[in-house]
Amino acid sequence: MEKLKKYVSVKDEDHFYHQGAVELLIFNFLLILTILTIWLFKNHRFRFLHETGGAMLYGLVMGLIIRYVTKSSDVESGTVYECEKLKSGPSTLLINITNQVYEYQYKREISHHNVNGHQGNAMLQKMTFDPSIFFNILLPPIIFHAGYSLKKRHFFRNLGSILAYAFLGTAISCIVIGLIMYGFVKAMVHIGQLKQWEFHFTDCLFFGSLMSATDPVTVLAIFHELNVDTDLYTLLFGESVLNDAVAIVLTHSISIYSPKENPNAFDAAAFFQSVGNFLGIFAGSFAMGSSYAVVTALISFMHLTKFTKLCEFPMLETGLFFLLSWSAFLSAEAAGLTGIVAVLFCGVTQAHYTYNNLSPDSKMRTKQLFEFMNFLAENVIFCYMGLALFTFQNHIFNPLFIFGALVAVFVARASNIYPLSFLLNLGRKQKIPRNFQHMMMFSGLRGAIAFALAIRDTDSQPKQMVFTTALLIVLFTVCVFGGGTTPMLTWLHIRFGFFYRVGVDPDEDLKAKAASQSASDLDKNTTKAESAWLFRIWYGFDHKYLKPLLTHAGPPLTSTLPEWCNPVARLLTSPSAYGDQLKDDDTVYIINNDELTENCESSAHTPVPAQDSTDCIQATGKEDIQEGDLGLGGYKLQLQHTAGQPQKNSLA
Amino acid sequence: MEKLKKYVSVKDEDHFYHQGAVELLIFNFLLILTILTIWLFKNHRFRFLHETGGAMLYGLVMGLIIRYVTKSSDVESGTVYECEKLKSGPSTLLINITNQVYEYQYKREISHHNVNGHQGNAMLQKMTFDPSIFFNILLPPIIFHAGYSLKKRHFFRNLGSILAYAFLGTAISCIVIGLIMYGFVKAMVHIGQLKQWEFHFTDCLFFGSLMSATDPVTVLAIFHELNVDTDLYTLLFGESVLNDAVAIVLTHSISIYSPKENPNAFDAAAFFQSVGNFLGIFAGSFAMGSSYAVVTALISFMHLTKFTKLCEFPMLETGLFFLLSWSAFLSAEAAGLTGIVAVLFCGVTQAHYTYNNLSPDSKMRTKQLFEFMNFLAENVIFCYMGLALFTFQNHIFNPLFIFGALVAVFVARASNIYPLSFLLNLGRKQKIPRNFQHMMMFSGLRGAIAFALAIRDTDSQPKQMVFTTALLIVLFTVCVFGGGTTPMLTWLHIRFGFFYRVGVDPDEDLKAKAASQSASDLDKNTTKAESAWLFRIWYGFDHKYLKPLLTHAGPPLTSTLPEWCNPVARLLTSPSAYGDQLKDDDTVYIINNDELTENCESSAHTPVPAQDSTDCIQATGKEDIQEGDLGLGGYKLQLQHTAGQPQKNSLA
Repeated sequence: MEKLKKYVSVKDEDHFYHQGAVELLIFNFLLILTILTIWLFKNHRFRFLHETGGAMLYGLVMGLIIRYVTKSSDVESGTVYECEKLKSGPSTLLINITNQVYEYQYKREISHHNVNGHQGNAMLQKMTFDPSIFFNILLPPIIFHAGYSLKKRHFFRNLGSILAYAFLGTAISCIVIGLIMYGFVKAMVHIGQLKQWEFHFTDCLFFGSLMSATDPVTVLAIFHELNVDTDLYTLLFGESVLNDAVAIVLTHSISIYSPKENPNAFDAAAFFQSVGNFLGIFAGSFAMGSSYAVVTALISFMHLTKFTKLCEFPMLETGLFFLLSWSAFLSAEAAGLTGIVAVLFCGVTQAHYTYNNLSPDSKMRTKQLFEFMNFLAENVIFCYMGLALFTFQNHIFNPLFIFGALVAVFVARASNIYPLSFLLNLGRKQKIPRNFQHMMMFSGLRGAIAFALAIRDTDSQPKQMVFTTALLIVLFTVCVFGGGTTPMLTWLHIRFGFFYRVGVDPDEDLKAKAASQSASDLDKNTTKAESAWLFRIWYGFDHKYLKPLLTHAGPPLTSTLPEWCNPVARLLTSPSAYGDQLKDDDTVYIINNDELTENCESSAHTPVPAQDSTDCIQATGKEDIQEGDLGLGGYKLQLQHTAGQPQKNSLA
Repeated sequence: MEKLKKYVSVKDEDHFYHQGAVELLIFNFLLILTILTIWLFKNHRFRFLHETGGAMLYGLVMGLIIRYVTKSSDVESGTVYECEKLKSGPSTLLINITNQVYEYQYKREISHHNVNGHQGNAMLQKMTFDPSIFFNILLPPIIFHAGYSLKKRHFFRNLGSILAYAFLGTAISCIVIGLIMYGFVKAMVHIGQLKQWEFHFTDCLFFGSLMSATDPVTVLAIFHELNVDTDLYTLLFGESVLNDAVAIVLTHSISIYSPKENPNAFDAAAFFQSVGNFLGIFAGSFAMGSSYAVVTALISFMHLTKFTKLCEFPMLETGLFFLLSWSAFLSAEAAGLTGIVAVLFCGVTQAHYTYNNLSPDSKMRTKQLFEFMNFLAENVIFCYMGLALFTFQNHIFNPLFIFGALVAVFVARASNIYPLSFLLNLGRKQKIPRNFQHMMMFSGLRGAIAFALAIRDTDSQPKQMVFTTALLIVLFTVCVFGGGTTPMLTWLHIRFGFFYRVGVDPDEDLKAKAASQSASDLDKNTTKAESAWLFRIWYGFDHKYLKPLLTHAGPPLTSTLPEWCNPVARLLTSPSAYGDQLKDDDTVYIINNDELTENCESSAHTPVPAQDSTDCIQATGKEDIQEGDLGLGGYKLQLQHTAGQPQKNSLA
């Protein structure tokens, strides 16, 4: 008898599991369909639908089918049981039901008004992801990949503008949306279109912050295919990457902001606490992410020099790279910081330092691995967005609110781009032209991040309305603006073509370069541009201290640090690794800084070694400059000669 | 007030999540440590510890720390609550606790005697994976990778022997272990060393079946490094791959076998039901897995010919490949079959057909992707094995039982290898030498599959003892036999060195070949060997019908099928794809079968096109033969000329 019962219970478990397999299978089929469709579209050069748009449309159709074809079945779920003995919800609950103990895992708290949603269709419930999956599994690879592929000199060239758009712009956008929505909600309550739930100003700001995360993935993919102007590409890419980080931390800070008394009143203490919170979390996540990348760089650097044969094991290298990057995310989460922000800066730092130390095989492997993870995760999210429109149980559609939100989003984007561009143009030598500004305005799509932030908290009714609205705005902007990119480019007379390839380092692409001589001349003027002071400070520090410490490039620390620092410098250049080689050959390799001035722009910057140097170091040095993530791109940099002192002395 | 409560509950959730991050972080650090250690070992050519062994040792240490350093904290868990209203355990439970509704997710059923285990340390509980993670996340990539890398002519050459070892051998091993353990248990009960729980004969067989899954991952890694004899490598690799599938299905069938009355009595009906079950599930999973691979081959084949430009998008190709292979797993699970077996045969078929249709970039990407997933999953499992020795809550150590099990495992391995080898040698022209047999005996390590099968069900006390014993045997065999491989090879006088590389297709490796002329001469005799009849039937069918249908290789179907089948043949060669090209050029490409006889062994088998053929097809044909997963390796094959009829007629 007992045997029989167990057999039945095993079958039950199987049943639960098979359900899971069916749901995953549905997702797989949606993705396969998407890929096949996109394959067809790409073949016919049909650019009105990016794969993300396709994924979304298929998701929509599938959601519709699940919603209206499957029947509601599971009667039992939806009943709320009482348990007087429990005082709070434990993480694991053991319940004795008809003399059999069952283990239950805590999932979440449910508001009373949402209980009804659970009485519905079991299939709908099953197709609903746990929101934490987005933040902990799907977003990290996307964000890391964005950071890891940011390895472009154009990014640092436009650093000032990008930072302005990302930080100031996002803050402006958040506040503008918040204010407009607050006015809108007040008006709607006044004309009786909205019941007086507590839709506070903080809820409006919350909506504003999450709607400020732009995600021009479709636009950028088309830019990439059409080889649109590199500066425009960089501005948009840089902005969207950093702006995600800002929006995520901002949303977190706002959701924590809780004035003690009247939730509508302004509470200075709570406000400054939130601001402090924002800064603390942002800085902490930044530090966490980049320090993991620095550790990776050091390990790979040590292995490269000390055990040169170890790049024979690219699998170990790739594994280490992957695990350390993931650890950055997990450590940040464990420390109460924001993992996604950490992983973004980890990616940027990995690309800047570690990438140069990797073996060629590992370089390719890591790139392709994250590219693939990004591809899958992105399509899953967009597919799920389409699905969620019909399968999410607690939608609150309010057409007026949605209309107001659309207006607010556009006004906010406009008051981000145009005023900031005007201010930046005052400082920039190479102005951001009018048509670029229009294109940036047009490219303010909302995507995965906004969706993930909105679905994270759908407990209260205001949050549910926020979620529904956010979802619709994402669908609308991705379909309409994503599809309209090519016509818009033509209409705005933004040059594109195959002569200048976005995403490819110009130096690597000499043929393309030759063809675009005129464009290059234009670039040369560009480069004596805007954020030169910021760039120069950073470049000097990076080139003199960080690069030598973490990679093979640049002059040895012993020559860049002041003479009295020599003992420390020699310690830091790790005698076990870099120092050894220096001593072995008793030669030093110094980049001749004069080389790094004007003629840098013209393709070949072969560094001239000051003395005869080992092949190994020279090769790495060269490579680093060709890979030139921080290449100078024609800046008139006048770094002091760091190789002033006689080298043999400093090593003695 | 409500706000405050919500804030607290959000913090609670965060707390839960941070716990999850900490555990994952611990795993990450263990893996990073493992990689660094192995990196060091490899550098010093220290072969006594494979990475899996290292992972296990670090896991052990970490388990020890967690067990004895962290304190028990969570007092509340472990209390069993009563709920009279519930009649059965629903999948989702809503509970009203102090006027707040919480959602709980069904996890599992717990036996009464295991409830105490839950009163312990919360950290230990948290570090315990859900057993289904092994079967649904960690094992599939390992098994798929094994299948995908099975692309070796040596495998098909030794097909008969491998099938014998895998099917007959595993069955023998299972029965021998079961019988010995049953005798042992009886004896132990007799001398009072074992309480009379119901340790039935089925439990013994269950133990036998799961302990029959060999996993010589360490041994094979060392073979690969040392370039041990290819035939020995293939025999071991093929056996271990197929044997996993057999053991998994066998274990499932035995756990379902439940005689109605006396559990110790033999019930013929139930027995034959189990056998039928085994055959049905095995065949079903095989069909499911290979049909997904065939679909992938067809899609990639169509794309290759019809839209030749589509190999420009390796990401889409790789994505499709990955998703379809995963779907094979999920479909099998959803249909109540065994996903892992399906994924294994999917991998084999993908390697045999789809691989030839992929673009070079995708070939590399898919290989590297699965290699990486295999690497990570394998290390996680071995790491967890070490950990589980100390963190699993319900171990039942019984030294006598463990000793008996070790003896049984060795006896079973011996009665698998030696008698079967003897029988096989009767049929084989190239005998399996004595020292190979000893080496195969020695390489019967137990690994990830045995562990995963054992941890899947640890509800009852016999199953717990089985789990503890299996875990210890895995630890023991991996450490002792894994470490002893190199000395054993020397001791058995098995030639190894760098002249003949395992895992590399001999033809690709001409230099190595020249050096090993004598070895090659020996091989030539080998090849007129054992499973020729099986091989010949399969080869003929595959070459004449499957390869032309699914890839670019081989003669067109129109020439291989009888003349009256021509309409069907033309339909099947898909006029949209292959046929189009044939018509366009009005030429047909036929492999001259004479070429495929004796002189095939001598490196260059450039097929001679019967008529002038398109470059495209010729190139693919050549490549396929060089990649030659099913290459002939010197078989004296005398296939009939299939190009008998005039080609133009058959196309008219």
